[in-house]
Amino acid sequence: MSELRKDPIIGRWVIVSVERAKRPSDFVVSVDWKEEKLCPFCPGHESERDDTELFIIKDFKKQNGWITRVVEDKYPILNFHGDIERIGEGMYDKMDNFGAHEIIIENSSHDKTLATMSIEEIYHVFWTYKQRFLALKDDKRFRHVIIVCNHGYGAGGQLKHPHSQLFATPIVPKSIMEEIEGTKEYYNYKERCIFCDIVREERRLKERLIINNSSMIAIAPFASRVPFETWILPVEHISSFENISEEGTMELAKVVKETFMRMEKILGDCPYNLFLHSSPFNKYLASEYHWHVEIMPRLTKLAGFEWGTGFYINPTPPEMAAEQLRTVAVNLYGG
Amino acid sequence: MSELRKDPIIGRWVIVSVERAKRPSDFVVSVDWKEEKLCPFCPGHESERDDTELFIIKDFKKQNGWITRVVEDKYPILNFHGDIERIGEGMYDKMDNFGAHEIIIENSSHDKTLATMSIEEIYHVFWTYKQRFLALKDDKRFRHVIIVCNHGYGAGGQLKHPHSQLFATPIVPKSIMEEIEGTKEYYNYKERCIFCDIVREERRLKERLIINNSSMIAIAPFASRVPFETWILPVEHISSFENISEEGTMELAKVVKETFMRMEKILGDCPYNLFLHSSPFNKYLASEYHWHVEIMPRLTKLAGFEWGTGFYINPTPPEMAAEQLRTVAVNLYGG
Repeated sequence: MSELRKDPIIGRWVIVSVERAKRPSDFVVSVDWKEEKLCPFCPGHESERDDTELFIIKDFKKQNGWITRVVEDKYPILNFHGDIERIGEGMYDKMDNFGAHEIIIENSSHDKTLATMSIEEIYHVFWTYKQRFLALKDDKRFRHVIIVCNHGYGAGGQLKHPHSQLFATPIVPKSIMEEIEGTKEYYNYKERCIFCDIVREERRLKERLIINNSSMIAIAPFASRVPFETWILPVEHISSFENISEEGTMELAKVVKETFMRMEKILGDCPYNLFLHSSPFNKYLASEYHWHVEIMPRLTKLAGFEWGTGFYINPTPPEMAAEQLRTVAVNLYGG
Repeated sequence: MSELRKDPIIGRWVIVSVERAKRPSDFVVSVDWKEEKLCPFCPGHESERDDTELFIIKDFKKQNGWITRVVEDKYPILNFHGDIERIGEGMYDKMDNFGAHEIIIENSSHDKTLATMSIEEIYHVFWTYKQRFLALKDDKRFRHVIIVCNHGYGAGGQLKHPHSQLFATPIVPKSIMEEIEGTKEYYNYKERCIFCDIVREERRLKERLIINNSSMIAIAPFASRVPFETWILPVEHISSFENISEEGTMELAKVVKETFMRMEKILGDCPYNLFLHSSPFNKYLASEYHWHVEIMPRLTKLAGFEWGTGFYINPTPPEMAAEQLRTVAVNLYGG
């Protein structure tokens, strides 16, 4: 019998198939990329592109070497030169397309992934995210920053070279706002953070737990929208990602690497979207919120039903996904 | 300069590109279908499939002829035998996968579309929807019915034969709940229906108006999520679709046919999703709500950004889409 499960944070219902549960071998989705003649993110092409460089972590072991780089997007969907004033137009509301759209080149190597980068390299990726959060927070026009990684053409990715996109906006995007509202409602009722409660509950139950580290966990959420959906959460209550410590970033890097190694063993190099969700900034800070990473493998096609209703159909129970990811053998420090 | 526009009903922000606006010729998406050996919905195969027939409009001009048929889905994602009781599981909520999942075969002809069916045939499609709403409303376990049509493989459609899917659920799906909440907030503030205000405003402004009939209009909504998104709304405030009259259904059929004829002239036979949004049932009735049809052409690929943020990027301003759809010549009654 299948079940309807309610996401405890935003109240979204998901249909979880149990009887005709799909196993990893039922999905034949491998990552695919468009052909590229010349990768604009590979070392040596920096000056050709004339990208506006916003941040760099240099690699002093190589001449002109770098570990991560952040540049302005060539075709930004948000524009840095604009106004944050809201304008009425009859009964409607609009504003300038103000915001920042940045590309974070996660590694100098064209072919690396979060499964194949070293823990230190992944540390630098998240440390770079933190530096951009801090820099953008200084601009009081911004309310929120989100980081999105589209891995594979099937997940909306364009270029293979490991990179993510950062969007800083003068509004709080709807899906984050919903999570914040849910978190506040729960807090008002229980005087506890719902994400902290999820961390405690999943560590106690273990059936949806994938990685249980002292400061960071990976789980398959109770109301997973898609097969093998995975969340990485800090055990400690921290609302804003940019407050992560050096040690916390190192623990996060370990859990990210282990998660992607486990995922690759089970699903191969499949298309996915990764989102870094964090509290809004400055006076919009939501202290009840709890930053986290959401990973959504793109193994199934979303049909009209999900689109029109916000009601997802997930053919793989998260308990089955978590068990497979948890039990597969990986060697985090091995070759 | 692009704009950020706020959906007045649910508060979702959309980025509308104006400077690099995409015209229809920039989209090369035509409808595609999987190969079929034998169409299970074509006349003559009814008994082979042994589908549970729920409703039929007979065509007495042909032996065993029918105009529309409704059958249970062969692989239902909701199960009619279940309980509506909600169950706690630790901190989480779940319930049986109870619900109805029906297939509405819209026409006996395999190749017809909403652009090529006659007005009378489209009348029968919507009249059939109404009959199913009325039948399901009698079952007090249901709170809501939604109808979804996936046209083309790129929109999640599986079979070419014109059909739609009906989902009756013991919960109100999230996207409908959001619309209802927005409608109620507006009503509390203004003591007017927001959809009625949109109808009045769009008829006055005309720039996003596609079809202006005395009882039914078609518009490109102000915060359109995708290029050529189109809504069809009754002018009169009716919360529940099942309360539509015979005359209203005939007017709706005319506007639906004209909308799809216009769309086909501009975009060809492209993949789309169609949703019929109506108030929940029985004691969950939202009298502030206003039923409507949403049509979402699938011309662009949704990337991680939209998924992770609920924040859409629309490269075609709705004013441009509406102008093109409105001005193209079509002959509603012609051959």
